[in-house]
Amino acid sequence: MSQQQFSSILLENAVNELAKLPGIGRKTALRLVLHLLKQPESDVEIFGNSFISLRKEVVYCSECHNISDTEVCQICGNGSRDHETVCVVENIKDVMTIENTQQYKGVYHVLGGIISPMEGIGPTDLEIESLVQRVQNDGIKEVILALSTTMEGDTTNFYIFRKLSALDVKVTTIARGIAIGDELEYTDEITLGRSILNRVEFSNSFK
Amino acid sequence: MSQQQFSSILLENAVNELAKLPGIGRKTALRLVLHLLKQPESDVEIFGNSFISLRKEVVYCSECHNISDTEVCQICGNGSRDHETVCVVENIKDVMTIENTQQYKGVYHVLGGIISPMEGIGPTDLEIESLVQRVQNDGIKEVILALSTTMEGDTTNFYIFRKLSALDVKVTTIARGIAIGDELEYTDEITLGRSILNRVEFSNSFK
Repeated sequence: MSQQQFSSILLENAVNELAKLPGIGRKTALRLVLHLLKQPESDVEIFGNSFISLRKEVVYCSECHNISDTEVCQICGNGSRDHETVCVVENIKDVMTIENTQQYKGVYHVLGGIISPMEGIGPTDLEIESLVQRVQNDGIKEVILALSTTMEGDTTNFYIFRKLSALDVKVTTIARGIAIGDELEYTDEITLGRSILNRVEFSNSFK
Repeated sequence: MSQQQFSSILLENAVNELAKLPGIGRKTALRLVLHLLKQPESDVEIFGNSFISLRKEVVYCSECHNISDTEVCQICGNGSRDHETVCVVENIKDVMTIENTQQYKGVYHVLGGIISPMEGIGPTDLEIESLVQRVQNDGIKEVILALSTTMEGDTTNFYIFRKLSALDVKVTTIARGIAIGDELEYTDEITLGRSILNRVEFSNSFK
């Protein structure tokens, strides 16, 4: 496809732009652009402008750094949520994922990434200092670490844990264990070992 | 994902717009939009505007109806190509596919679809009348039908053949047969039968 001849520069530009997105190849991009070409002009205008205005007008919540349309996001601005419990996540997608479980009633803190020396991301590139300040100033009782179980996630967890250890706050992490529906036989030893160590009272497992 | 809670209407709009594209689900759309959010504002502006200006400024060649930036496309405007041979294709993607083979030196005629009673597409919705006029007025000697080998493609082929039968023009169709690299064992009977009927001189098969 690299030598693909386009009979229109406008078409070529649109395909190139779409093919810049991760996971979208040039064949897919061409298919999608040809689909857009068949849509009414006004629809394509709404399509294109939706990205431009998102990027231009996006606001991040001044408290939790989640994406928002207002200075303080809907979650932080919600008085009925538990503002003494903060769940620390890597990005705004994780906030959505946890919100979808409908099991969490506290607030969030979006780090904007995790510590990754390989990618040149250090603690100062993340919203860790602002987390420490929230814990110091906002009467937070519990910080739940909900990062990925990768080496980078563990490093970040440990860094935050050390930063918070001097403060009067409980630091917890989400439970690691066998996923519901998974068979014991196919679980890796580390997860299985951890889930035996962190076993819970059977009567609590229904809650 | 249908009950996905978005903390930003701008984000939700952008995800919804992207998820309208065929084959892009809401999860993929969200992933792509979050990628766009990380790009510089000017890049996202170029991204969005590439689709808007394509749709607004697109021109179709007045001769072959291929997509173009000018009134007559590069292929029709190329004097070194064979203007007496016209290859009839369904859409502009097929033009690119054939151009990529670098085997064809004639010109094209883009129908803009194929006859499909199920989808309510009849002969008058397609560029068939303009094809007949080109054959009548432009000294065309051969029309090559290069439509898909589906029932709709065959119907359209036959309709065009009938329309052109009164005129002094040779009508051919691209060869159907076993694809190069395919094993005989896995070829369907109809294709195999056709490729026996339409066998060619061995000495011609190298050309």
